[in-house]
Amino acid sequence: MNADIRRERENASFKTEVLTHILDGGPEKTKRRREIENLVINDPGFQHEDLNFLSRSERYDAAVKKSAWMILKLREYGISDPEEIFFYKSTAQRNYNDPMDVHFLMFVRSLWNMCTEEQLNKWLPLIQSYSAIGTYAQTELGHGTHIRGLETTATYDPSTQEFVLNSPTVTSIKWWPGGLGKTSNHAVVLAQLYTQGNCHGLHAFIVPIRCMTTHKPLPGVVVGDIGPKFGFDEVDNGFLKLENVRIPRENMLMKYAKVEPDGTYKKPPSDKLTYSTMVFIRSMIVGESARSLSKACMIAIRYSAVRHQSELRAGEPEPQILDYQTQQYKLFPLLAAAYAFHFMGQYMIQMYHRISGDISQGDFSEMSELHALSAGLKAFTTWVATEGIEVCRMACGGHGYSRCSRLPDIYVTFAPTCTYEGENTVMMLQTARYLVKSYSQASAGQKLSGMVSYLNESQQHHLQAQPVTARSTVVNINDLTSLVEAYKLRAAKLVELAAKNLQHELQLKASKEDAWNNTSIELVRASDAHCHYVVVKTFAAKLTEVHDAAVHLALSTLALLYALHGMTENSGDFLQAGLLTVPQLSQVSQRVKELLSQVRPNAVALVDAFDYRDEILDSALGRYDGNVYESMFEWAQKSPLNQTEVHESYHKYLKPLQSKL
Amino acid sequence: MNADIRRERENASFKTEVLTHILDGGPEKTKRRREIENLVINDPGFQHEDLNFLSRSERYDAAVKKSAWMILKLREYGISDPEEIFFYKSTAQRNYNDPMDVHFLMFVRSLWNMCTEEQLNKWLPLIQSYSAIGTYAQTELGHGTHIRGLETTATYDPSTQEFVLNSPTVTSIKWWPGGLGKTSNHAVVLAQLYTQGNCHGLHAFIVPIRCMTTHKPLPGVVVGDIGPKFGFDEVDNGFLKLENVRIPRENMLMKYAKVEPDGTYKKPPSDKLTYSTMVFIRSMIVGESARSLSKACMIAIRYSAVRHQSELRAGEPEPQILDYQTQQYKLFPLLAAAYAFHFMGQYMIQMYHRISGDISQGDFSEMSELHALSAGLKAFTTWVATEGIEVCRMACGGHGYSRCSRLPDIYVTFAPTCTYEGENTVMMLQTARYLVKSYSQASAGQKLSGMVSYLNESQQHHLQAQPVTARSTVVNINDLTSLVEAYKLRAAKLVELAAKNLQHELQLKASKEDAWNNTSIELVRASDAHCHYVVVKTFAAKLTEVHDAAVHLALSTLALLYALHGMTENSGDFLQAGLLTVPQLSQVSQRVKELLSQVRPNAVALVDAFDYRDEILDSALGRYDGNVYESMFEWAQKSPLNQTEVHESYHKYLKPLQSKL
Repeated sequence: MNADIRRERENASFKTEVLTHILDGGPEKTKRRREIENLVINDPGFQHEDLNFLSRSERYDAAVKKSAWMILKLREYGISDPEEIFFYKSTAQRNYNDPMDVHFLMFVRSLWNMCTEEQLNKWLPLIQSYSAIGTYAQTELGHGTHIRGLETTATYDPSTQEFVLNSPTVTSIKWWPGGLGKTSNHAVVLAQLYTQGNCHGLHAFIVPIRCMTTHKPLPGVVVGDIGPKFGFDEVDNGFLKLENVRIPRENMLMKYAKVEPDGTYKKPPSDKLTYSTMVFIRSMIVGESARSLSKACMIAIRYSAVRHQSELRAGEPEPQILDYQTQQYKLFPLLAAAYAFHFMGQYMIQMYHRISGDISQGDFSEMSELHALSAGLKAFTTWVATEGIEVCRMACGGHGYSRCSRLPDIYVTFAPTCTYEGENTVMMLQTARYLVKSYSQASAGQKLSGMVSYLNESQQHHLQAQPVTARSTVVNINDLTSLVEAYKLRAAKLVELAAKNLQHELQLKASKEDAWNNTSIELVRASDAHCHYVVVKTFAAKLTEVHDAAVHLALSTLALLYALHGMTENSGDFLQAGLLTVPQLSQVSQRVKELLSQVRPNAVALVDAFDYRDEILDSALGRYDGNVYESMFEWAQKSPLNQTEVHESYHKYLKPLQSKL
Repeated sequence: MNADIRRERENASFKTEVLTHILDGGPEKTKRRREIENLVINDPGFQHEDLNFLSRSERYDAAVKKSAWMILKLREYGISDPEEIFFYKSTAQRNYNDPMDVHFLMFVRSLWNMCTEEQLNKWLPLIQSYSAIGTYAQTELGHGTHIRGLETTATYDPSTQEFVLNSPTVTSIKWWPGGLGKTSNHAVVLAQLYTQGNCHGLHAFIVPIRCMTTHKPLPGVVVGDIGPKFGFDEVDNGFLKLENVRIPRENMLMKYAKVEPDGTYKKPPSDKLTYSTMVFIRSMIVGESARSLSKACMIAIRYSAVRHQSELRAGEPEPQILDYQTQQYKLFPLLAAAYAFHFMGQYMIQMYHRISGDISQGDFSEMSELHALSAGLKAFTTWVATEGIEVCRMACGGHGYSRCSRLPDIYVTFAPTCTYEGENTVMMLQTARYLVKSYSQASAGQKLSGMVSYLNESQQHHLQAQPVTARSTVVNINDLTSLVEAYKLRAAKLVELAAKNLQHELQLKASKEDAWNNTSIELVRASDAHCHYVVVKTFAAKLTEVHDAAVHLALSTLALLYALHGMTENSGDFLQAGLLTVPQLSQVSQRVKELLSQVRPNAVALVDAFDYRDEILDSALGRYDGNVYESMFEWAQKSPLNQTEVHESYHKYLKPLQSKL
């Protein structure tokens, strides 16, 4: 092992393993996770060349091979717990995706949730045997987040008891669904339902798209891959154009809405249930933000411990770049954010399960809060993590640009979370709608509960544009509880600002839509502040559950850093709200620097605790043993361009060029 | 043409062509640029498939083919003016790179600058005939920005009058040079010179690496491609390991330093001249920031004019997404920055040529300012542009993630500018060193000139931590001159803060290196503020040269937006320095929103003025005619995965899977 990185580990003030158990949720969980990871890592069926050395078609081929193998092995091992499947899958996939993800996450789930019992009897065996492999076709070439705008039509023909599906325009072509291009033989298609001359809005239909024997596209089905993307090279995101495709009436998912044989339409009893999958996936993405950001931090921090560069003291050896304050300033706040998001992700999943339980008991009271929180936090955490991964990459200097660092792959695999499952700005505005509504309710004297309960207080305190000096001196920058309070008051202030701006615009403009649009910058800012508060609060709350003193101290330092660094990044807000004074702001900057040096000796241990095995992280820069350069040199030898000593282009172009000059 | 985008053009308040002339530097320049672009666009020799459909090796092949063709055609047309070559090259390369860029920019230039006349007589004919194709091998696996740390050795052997070159460690392997892997047969190698038992530091040597007849690596030369990267797929960035490679004494570049036949070393007279190429390239990168960011804005803004999404008013058609305030807030400040950087880039090149003239007259007085400014502005503009390109990409929603948007390509091609030619944080600290030195000189009563002359004033005014209220009310947020002043005072304040912090640390710590390191966050902040001031000032100055009233108005709006948006982004600084009051800050936010609506009707015309032909921009989303969806659908058909109806992986893995379950 590299001597620098060994020394880092020796100097850490806490036991890494204890922290790993906290992250996993207990020693038993760590043990089981590692057992599952070992199943994959030791399985020759999952070995393959670096995907970056392969062509697009070869990458897709390798991914399908892996999916098929995984399905067999999971059955063989009898692994069926969703969390265990998740461990298995993410170890197998490393930093990439699975062309069958949409099949598992959306197709099967949609059928489970929206089939009648009769329909389930038909489809379950087909799913079990993988005779039906499916995707979920919602977005169209011209339509994304706003699903009411979708144009695909499903028109009922009572004479044959069939639906006729059509893509009437170029913009209506289904676009993006994963696994649609080449893998799937079925799709759950979202289409505008027409029957008896009326449109009843969006409904879901199971559409066979490829022959179950030959896998060739069925008549009227124009299907294919949408072409190369920033990442997701191994996934066949696809397009689907439907030309008078007929499906039996029974292929409409009819658990809620129905069309009877004669074409009579029956409305669904409630539309609240359709939120559930969306909310679950958004909550999961919060955890994915933590996962991707922590991988990036692990790579950048381990590399920074091994990399020596420039000089701090003339004549002395080049220092580890982790000793540069600017490097610490780039990486440690992101490390703190990775921890914060990890705990936030755990909280969201627990909240989801709790509220799902309530809902199944008929209690919808917390549904809107969960919906608002999952939307905002999905946006908040994915934005921070996406930017943060690139900061980590660039903090590795030139080598971060090499695919062997794995940072480009982590980036392009993660970045689409900012767009999919609801575009982030739209998500922030959904949360804002809930915040403004809550603010109005509190103004009207209603008592709010949950994460927005601070809006009760703000009504009591009647926050002013220029708050009293008394409050501003209350913030104790060394006390996390006091910082949580400051974040809370900032959120309250910004929600109030947005709400008042909205009212002001309403007085000026004719329509409430224009008023909303003209306040949207403030609304996004308010949501952002709300989410920031929730994350700081959750991190602080988590600390109370940590009993190991050394780990508690290390995590407290990170939590303080997270909160104080966020203050310097948003100092205008805190000054403007009178929550900080100018001299205090200088103290905050000073304190941040002290915290950086307190994190410094534990930095490597703090990333070690994430416990991504080398085989999963798959990064030459982020190796556990720190043998970075040997590993890079070895990797480079395998580059496809090194398969021949002289590239054919020399004979084709350069040699002839010389003869012509 | 798409009706929306036609309407946008009809509604613009100024003539696009007039603005294009300003950007180009006059109508004659526009005309000539277009002539040159047409030479490339109409040349069948430059036609090729989308590189994204090709394998790595095919991409490299296509790029070499293009380089060779370009060399022939430039000779044929007799184009030799550097600016005209630049137009030709960038049209041919579109959004990619040329494996021979390092040959042109660094290898040939190094030989020109560092060869004796005798050496030039030998090498020029070889360069002219492309018998010698070269690269510039500086960075090593373990060493980047800090060139004194390089480990490659060149030891003089007087018995044979040769240098013996070696890569003594893994970390000393040359790594990254473009064109090194497969294309070049020579390299200018930077190595530690040893003669007569002494090390004389870094010197440059011409090392033949491949046989000029067979192109095979020469004995003792281990050379190859470093493997796939985030981008630059078409370039063979390479590694080079030298094992007792002997070159004649005459292959040391001896215009300045010399080694005589007996091994006597003669020092160079000055090392200032070696800065020149570096400073030139950094100045060029400022213009590249403008170029890449303006391409991204062109794509995102045109697409936003064509894309309809969601609803502003119930029942009405979906609005153009450019009408959403949040979309404007993302894109218009970046559009303003693209213009600001364009003018900044022009200024830098003019300054470079002026100061180069002075230097050739023996006047080095402005060299340090140019060096400091080019370092800081390179960092400032590349950071903003890199982040900005991603904001533009994500503002296109899911479709920005497709390679057909061209935004991923623009991003990965541009992003390395943050790292190469000097890592950005290191660059910022170099500028800071100059600022702090200037501050000390002003404190000592010296009169400063140039862009740092404001530090004279700050000494007069003796800025205080809590400045008098009188000054803060001076800022007129509707007056650009007043805003330039505010940016100046912010910079002065932050330079002072950093300088004082440095002094404070010096009192606490033993070494000045530790003090520097412990102030580096403040130092980067000061440089950033300095650069921001210079950009705002340059934009404002440019307006005085614009005589067309309509264009003047449109550009003034952008300049105000650039300055005011920057204030909201750094509001903490302005509040802290007492340059803005809390109520003023709210006015700034309000004013920014007004400016967004003023930019709105001109947005498409403002990107049209950049005048990138469809063939250069090469983006399905950014097409001039706005026919986005048809173009995407057509492009997708060509995806390699669509070459067969059924992908072979179906028969290999999915079909067998079904039979096993």
